[in-house]
Amino acid sequence: MELARLFGECLQSIRKRQGISQEELAHLCDLDRTYISLLERGKRQPSLTTIFVIAKNLGYKPSDLIKQIEN
Amino acid sequence: MELARLFGECLQSIRKRQGISQEELAHLCDLDRTYISLLERGKRQPSLTTIFVIAKNLGYKPSDLIKQIEN
Repeated sequence: MELARLFGECLQSIRKRQGISQEELAHLCDLDRTYISLLERGKRQPSLTTIFVIAKNLGYKPSDLIKQIEN
Repeated sequence: MELARLFGECLQSIRKRQGISQEELAHLCDLDRTYISLLERGKRQPSLTTIFVIAKNLGYKPSDLIKQIEN
């Protein structure tokens, strides 16, 4: 589940850089806060839609979010 | 499930352009052929790992595959 862990780390660092709490991001994305926490700890894999929703609410293009994990 | 449908259309057109059957792509990706078919018809959402595996086996960077759906 290496990719899930990388996605989680990337998500957490972007979120913290923007000074957004898990609660705020969950609210923006209409997701549960615990799910955001599970994603950030690499315990869940985001689906295509979740990647797009999270990227949009962090002000990223989905492809740019994926690029961060690719490299 | 608009995104799933877009992903499916994109996957199918790339696969066909490369002359690869669903069976062959499924084998390359170590996925079930019926799952490839469900993805192509937008009936299933790919997870992060599935996006990476499929992109790699089609010779695409995952971010480039996502970019096709973004636009």
